[in-house]
Parts: sequence; C-alpha cells; structure tokens
Amino acid sequence: MDDSIQAIHTGLQAIVGSDQIFTGTATDRWSRDWTGQFEGMPLAVVRPGTCEEVAAILRLAGQYNVPVVPIAGNTGLNGGAYGAGSILVSIERMNRIREIRSDARVAVVEAGVIVAALDSAVGQYGLTFPLTFGAAGSAMIGGVLSTNAGGANVLRYGNVRDLCLGLEVVLPDGRVLDLMTALKKDNSGFDLRDLIIGAEGQLGIIIAAILKLHPRPVFHATALVALEDLREAPALLNAFQDASGNAVTAYEFMSRSYVAGYEKLVPTARRFFENFYPAVLLVELATVRNEELGELLETVLGDAMERGVVADAVIAQSDMQRQEMWSLREAAAELAFRKHPVIDTDIAVPVDCVAEYLERIPELGPVST
Amino acid sequence: MDDSIQAIHTGLQAIVGSDQIFTGTATDRWSRDWTGQFEGMPLAVVRPGTCEEVAAILRLAGQYNVPVVPIAGNTGLNGGAYGAGSILVSIERMNRIREIRSDARVAVVEAGVIVAALDSAVGQYGLTFPLTFGAAGSAMIGGVLSTNAGGANVLRYGNVRDLCLGLEVVLPDGRVLDLMTALKKDNSGFDLRDLIIGAEGQLGIIIAAILKLHPRPVFHATALVALEDLREAPALLNAFQDASGNAVTAYEFMSRSYVAGYEKLVPTARRFFENFYPAVLLVELATVRNEELGELLETVLGDAMERGVVADAVIAQSDMQRQEMWSLREAAAELAFRKHPVIDTDIAVPVDCVAEYLERIPELGPVST
Repeated sequence: MDDSIQAIHTGLQAIVGSDQIFTGTATDRWSRDWTGQFEGMPLAVVRPGTCEEVAAILRLAGQYNVPVVPIAGNTGLNGGAYGAGSILVSIERMNRIREIRSDARVAVVEAGVIVAALDSAVGQYGLTFPLTFGAAGSAMIGGVLSTNAGGANVLRYGNVRDLCLGLEVVLPDGRVLDLMTALKKDNSGFDLRDLIIGAEGQLGIIIAAILKLHPRPVFHATALVALEDLREAPALLNAFQDASGNAVTAYEFMSRSYVAGYEKLVPTARRFFENFYPAVLLVELATVRNEELGELLETVLGDAMERGVVADAVIAQSDMQRQEMWSLREAAAELAFRKHPVIDTDIAVPVDCVAEYLERIPELGPVST
Repeated sequence: MDDSIQAIHTGLQAIVGSDQIFTGTATDRWSRDWTGQFEGMPLAVVRPGTCEEVAAILRLAGQYNVPVVPIAGNTGLNGGAYGAGSILVSIERMNRIREIRSDARVAVVEAGVIVAALDSAVGQYGLTFPLTFGAAGSAMIGGVLSTNAGGANVLRYGNVRDLCLGLEVVLPDGRVLDLMTALKKDNSGFDLRDLIIGAEGQLGIIIAAILKLHPRPVFHATALVALEDLREAPALLNAFQDASGNAVTAYEFMSRSYVAGYEKLVPTARRFFENFYPAVLLVELATVRNEELGELLETVLGDAMERGVVADAVIAQSDMQRQEMWSLREAAAELAFRKHPVIDTDIAVPVDCVAEYLERIPELGPVST
C-alpha cells in the first residue's frame, strides 16, 4: 500500500509538479467544510492547470483504483466535496474567463472562475450572470454546475442548468467530452450536458462552460410582506408576476421561527414588523428600465391588503433598507447550521404544496419556495 | 418467421384487443409522413390505452426482438416516426389532461394530448402552454417532448425542455420510470428527465408529463423589419428585449429568397415591402398588461432606422395584418419541402454566428435565429 501511495505521489508530481500537490495539514483549506460536519484528510490535493493535467490525474487514479473527488470553491453545505483518502482535484487554478460575447450574451469560462467575479466582469457590457447566493463570492462555476445551484434569483433566471449552454468535461477514464456549443437549441444526440449538470462530479470533472448572460437590471423594488396564511403565497406571486411582466427576481419565504431566530442572532438588526407573522416573504422586482417598480409593488400590495391576503408590508425606501432586508434572508445558512443535528438542506417541494408541507413538518428552518 | 409474426399478433391482441391493432393498408395514416420522404409499412400499428399496455407491448417486442417506434401526431419532418417492419406504438388514445393546477401553473397531461388543445384548455385560467408552431393543431405532447421542439415562441419560453417538469416513461424492458415531480428544482439523482427529452424515443416511450404554464399574453405588437445586413440582427434583438423587459416572443428571420419564394407560392399575398431585402425579420412582443407595446416597437424601430440599421419596417395595424405576417413565416415547411432533395431542417447555429453561416452556405431556405 505504501508503495502504491508513493507511486501515486510520483505520478501526480510528474503531472502537475510538486508545487501543486498538498498533503497532510497542508490540505486543511480543502478538507474541512464551512459547516464543520465534513472533515477528512485526503490522500492529496492537486491543483491541475490544464485539461490535459486533469485527464492525466484521472487516468493515474484509475490505474491505482483511488477515488477522486473534484472540489471547486468548497462552499457546499452537504459534503459534496468530502474526500477522505481520495485525490481531491481542485480546479481553482483554471479560472480564466476565455471570452465574453456580448451580442450573443454568452460567456466562455473555465470552471475555477468565481461566480461573483464573472458577474462583475460582464457588468461593463450592461450584462449580468444572475446566479447569486450567500457564497457567490467564493463559489466557483464548476461547483455550481455540478450541484445545479439555484440561489436567490432562481425564480427569474432558473437554476444554473438554465444558464448553461455548453460544457467541457473530463470523463473518469481521462477522455475529454467536448459539449462546448453556444446553441440555444442543441438537439444533436442525447442531452449529455444536462446529465452532467447536477451529477456532483460523479460522471466527470467539469473544466469549462459556456454560460448565458442576461441584461443587467438597473432598477430594483424590494419589500418584506407578512402573511397570516402561507397558502396565499403562490397566488400573490402570480399577481406580482402578471403586474410586472415577470419582473420578480426573488420571492423568499421565512417562517415565524426563522425571523425570531434572526432577531436573536442579530439583536441590533432592524425589526421590520412589530408582530411575528406565520409567514414573511422577501419580494424583489428588477428591470432594465425603470417602469415605476415601486409604484407597481405598492399597487399589488395595496390590493392584497384590501383583500385581507397581506397582513403587513414594508417597501424598502433606500438601498440600505434593501440590504437590511437581504441580510435577514442571507443569514439562512448561519441560522440553519446553529441547530443540531442538521438533517438536510435545500429540500424542494411543488410551489402549491409548500404550505401543507410546512404544516406537516413542524419546526423547520428557512425554506425557499 | 411467419410463426413469430403470428405469435406477435396474438400477443398484441391479448394486450390491446384486436380493435387497436392495424396492419397492411390500414396503417397508412401512421406510416406515411407529411413530407412524403418517409414511408414504409410497419409490422403493425398498436394503440395502447394505458401505461400497463405500453409496458406489455415493449416486453413482447423485446421477447421477439422486433423494433418498436413510438408515434404521436406524426408531424415530424425528419423521419423520426419511420418504422418499416416495426411495431408502431401510437400514444394517441392516451390523451387525457389529468389536472390543471392554476396556482402552481402546471398541467399534468398524457402524451397523446394535442399541443394546441392543451393551450386552449388552460386559456380559461388566463394561462398558456406557449409552445406553438405550424403543426401545433395535430402534434402531441409525447412527440414534442421526444424531439425537444422549439417553435415560434422559443425565444421567450425556451424549447419544450424548458417547459417540462416531470415525465412518466416506459423503458424498453417494460419498467416504468416515474419522474412525475412538479418541482422547479429537482436535484435528486441524475437528471434522467432531460436525458429522455429529445431522445426521439430511443430510451423509452413518454406516456405522461407535468408541464409548465405561463400567463397568457393579451396584448401583441407585431412587425416585419427589413435589414440590409443580417449582422445587425442580434443587437437589434437585444434592443427590443431591453426596451420591453424581455417581452419579445418571436424573432424570425426570412431570407431574400424565402420572401421571393413565398410571393411566388401565394401570389395573392400582401407584399409588405416594395424591395427585396437581404433579411426580413418577423418581430413580435407580447404582454399580459398593455404597456403600449406598439409605441415601444415604434420607438426602437425609429431609433434603429435613424442609425441606418433598419432599412424598412411595417407594424401590424390590425389582427388581420398580424395574421398575414405570420402566414409568411408559417409557409416555411411548405416552401422548404418544395425544393428537392431536402438535406436537413432545424439547423442550430449560435446567435452571433448566423449571419456568417448564411454567407457561407448560400441558397439556404428559411432559418430561425
């Protein structure tokens, strides 16, 4: 066994050079996750710089029958990058934005590009890569694709699956699968792209992607909305969508216990409502052109309050107030992981079944509709 | 061989009853396609009425090693339902709309439901199933899913892949794959749903689906736009999208030769432009609320004409004029198949490469950007 470990290390050195191999305590940065739940020493962390190096690592691992776990930004909460005894393949050095094609609204990127960095880079063209969530400042494209991340704008732009046109993937045997098309419709052969997205690295390591970009919204209108009955939420969402021409970018549910937990966690935080309501929704509309979004929000909320659907509502009057509202929502991971044991995160339920689900599973943490 | 054919027929009769089995010239309706290019007598056409019957047919076919070809509305142009010597499994009797959940904006349907019929059924809820194309009045859900159809609204609503949340599939060995979730995000296991969509029936027969619905647009603004240079089209599309908050539902390109061909085919048709331009675009915006769409269209077109991007433009002033514009576009299949030999249809090219593609492949028929 020691002989083969030595041979693996020698092999890895020949592929990436000794500078890009980490063992023992030098692997800490990659082998512990944010939740503190998943920790285990890998055989080695390697940081390849090219497609060919990734392929060679996978061939070597196959030869010695050592498991391989790809790792990107290490921001996952469910142990997807846990790899005790494995070769952890970090794609963080492959972080080049190869091309931004503003007319076609696509970006060609390597898997190690940080999500927020891509969004920032395309901003100069008036475009956005709209995937965003608490960890967007460190999560990487390869990771969000392998987990099919959703995030706070999922309602408007879909999961990252909906934002991906093409992929470059190194298969477990070292072959390279080139699916790098920028086609809106690609009906050639089986849809291998979507099979690999969300596969958590089990089918191969994503090393590059062609991603869709969207016009960058300039105007935002944000509100916290309190409901006595969560069952009203889907119809209210539809009212916002219809009134705004589908300009809703966020519609995030927070339970009574979540809001209470947040106020305990951050005692200095602004209290938006005097009472604790069964359901608080964070609603955000965003457009490229100012279409009197705030006014529109007010109209829909006014109607809903008259009908008794909405118990109370606060519309952000400044960017600071908007940020305060988002801080409430973005504490979700922190709040969820204070309760132990953590059972699961990111549970999905059909939109019109959320209220019933929550009734039947009491004392849940925050859930995104 | 005759013995086994006899055994297959006996087996099929036991499954679906002799009323639902067709052989010889009785198979004509299914064994000839609209293009006249694909014609071949199947061993039999069978019309199962339930999931269990479909499963039993597939098991029987496997036992006798007979190919099976699923057939839905038989509107395809590329021979996907060609099945000489095969058992053609028509799913047309499985045509029930099981459920319309208007709050969640989903419909649960069987694969034999006709595309336009579904759209019509959800209209009473102010919703639309937005997939549409020339053959929507006879194409069926199972067929459009198996071919990942796009259609005239693909720009706004995506391919049918983007409209599908769940599937029920009978696998080649008769097992039933139940992927009937209504989840906007389903990250459990591998994405088998997308693997089956667009697989042309090679991986199984789709027998039911859960489909997304959208708010039904009430207001439309439609124009024909003439360009001297197709290279201007992507930026012009972006201008329409940004100005309207992504209200563009159609953006269809027709070449000079296409427009000339149409005028020859339908000499009585209205001529929108005095000249033949290199590129004519059919542009349509649609919203749930009237946001002065016509005015918006005029503004963007006015700007573009001033900048010399647009050579000429006609905005539909009535529903009849809108229909005339669509008639021009919808003659595409008819025009394409008048030229022989037909080489291919539905070619996909990245948006910003369409102009170059057309330059390099002279004398193409109509192409959808």
